[in-house]
Amino acid sequence: MSSKILLIGASGTIGQAVLANLAARHEVITAGRSSGAQRVDFAQPGSVEALLKAVGKVDAIVSTAGNLHFGPLAEMTAEQFNLGLQDKLLGQVRLALLGQHVLNDGGSITLTSGIVGIEPIRNGANATAVNAAIEGFVAAAAIELARGIRINAVSPTVLTESMGAYGPFFPGFESVPAVRVALAYQRSVEGGQTGRVYRVNG
Amino acid sequence: MSSKILLIGASGTIGQAVLANLAARHEVITAGRSSGAQRVDFAQPGSVEALLKAVGKVDAIVSTAGNLHFGPLAEMTAEQFNLGLQDKLLGQVRLALLGQHVLNDGGSITLTSGIVGIEPIRNGANATAVNAAIEGFVAAAAIELARGIRINAVSPTVLTESMGAYGPFFPGFESVPAVRVALAYQRSVEGGQTGRVYRVNG
Ligand SMILES: NC(=O)c1ccc[n+]([C@@H]2O[C@H](COP(=O)([O-])OP(=O)(O)OC[C@H]3O[C@@H](n4cnc5c(N)ncnc54)[C@H](OP(=O)(O)O)[C@@H]3O)[C@@H](O)[C@H]2O)c1
Ligand SMILES: NC(=O)c1ccc[n+]([C@@H]2O[C@H](COP(=O)([O-])OP(=O)(O)OC[C@H]3O[C@@H](n4cnc5c(N)ncnc54)[C@H](OP(=O)(O)O)[C@@H]3O)[C@@H](O)[C@H]2O)c1
Repeated sequence: MSSKILLIGASGTIGQAVLANLAARHEVITAGRSSGAQRVDFAQPGSVEALLKAVGKVDAIVSTAGNLHFGPLAEMTAEQFNLGLQDKLLGQVRLALLGQHVLNDGGSITLTSGIVGIEPIRNGANATAVNAAIEGFVAAAAIELARGIRINAVSPTVLTESMGAYGPFFPGFESVPAVRVALAYQRSVEGGQTGRVYRVNG
Repeated sequence: MSSKILLIGASGTIGQAVLANLAARHEVITAGRSSGAQRVDFAQPGSVEALLKAVGKVDAIVSTAGNLHFGPLAEMTAEQFNLGLQDKLLGQVRLALLGQHVLNDGGSITLTSGIVGIEPIRNGANATAVNAAIEGFVAAAAIELARGIRINAVSPTVLTESMGAYGPFFPGFESVPAVRVALAYQRSVEGGQTGRVYRVNG
């Protein structure tokens, strides 16, 4: 059955593949800071409220967005660490907290974490903490959401399409193509599970 | 061998027991916002820098401090969620990031998470996310710390001493007395492990 889906980050490496997958069967409204049919920066208070008001009731909210700080622990400042907290973590949490109220009964929320949440890499302390927090939030929110609303996270390993940029940070990691990662978002949106982390590994 | 230990949160339910344990063998410098020999609010930029300058080189830094937001998911705002991010999470991360540079070779950092990080409870979405993030940070920081410096977290279940206040939020959870929880901090400080989460359950 066709649904109305709000996709934040649709222009990204993961987002494009998720859009291609979901748009084959659903109405997808795309959003990003400087891309998409709607403009939103979920790290900014007020921005998500405006987006949700413009979009109205939806059946699913999907985020394939979020920025982190990468850098050596020895040089990392609390202010740098807070960038990832305010963007990828609090941005997606804000989307879920506000989004729960605009979802139709039985709707779903799907957030994005990443393999670094359980497999630390050098320069990745902020990423591990933020991704672990997103997965924790999803597990906890799932037991409180009302009206049959579900919430899951997708945790991809490094994407094949991103190996040029991120490969050196992931020595010996197998990559996965975006088209496979997109299947996990489809499982979350069209399946019946909640409180899950879908791990897409090589 | 006697060490010099900085303990943030020494006046608290957990902190008092950790102080009693560690002070039997070490020099312990206590700190808190309005308690302890030194004053610090680790949620405030600048405050930890001043503390560490006052204290000088130490062998171990222990935190038994940190505030969270508790409340129903349906009413939770991003601003409330951010309180826990700025205090218990970023406060302890700030302490570790700055603390790594004032620790003697082979020193250690011990942070506090909590059982809600892996066992969600109602009203606890912020606590699960923050505690999971702390455990993620510890796992990631452990692979980058230099000069033999170690980092661990202690994750207690609800304390017997706290059952009057928190019991109703933990239906069917077995509590543990603070004196048992304090042993986990001793293991972290005096033992040789790093990147560990010491779970103290009933
Ligand atoms: N690529 C990988 O290998 C990989 C692996 C595991 C996890 N991840 C995670 O997956 C997410 C997406 O990665 P990606 O490689 O696809 O990123 P990307 O190519 O940089 O795309 C990010 C997308 O999100 C949007 N966006 C970024 N920040 C935003 C914000 N604050 N508010 C709203 N929209 C925002 C961007 O559009 P605008 O620029 O127009 O805002 C873009 O559409 C990230 O959180 C990343 O950590 C990626
Ligand atoms: N009690 C439990 O059952 C339990 C179980 C699992 C996990 N935990 C976690 O363990 C930690 C301590 O719990 P507790 O019950 O012992 O708390 P508590 O009795 O309220 O004591 C907190 C201690 O930390 C200090 N403190 C609080 N915020 C601070 C800040 N921003 N900067 C510096 N010092 C600060 C307090 O002193 P000042 O007021 O003078 O600052 C006090 O010494 C918390 O993070 C809690 O989530 C507790």
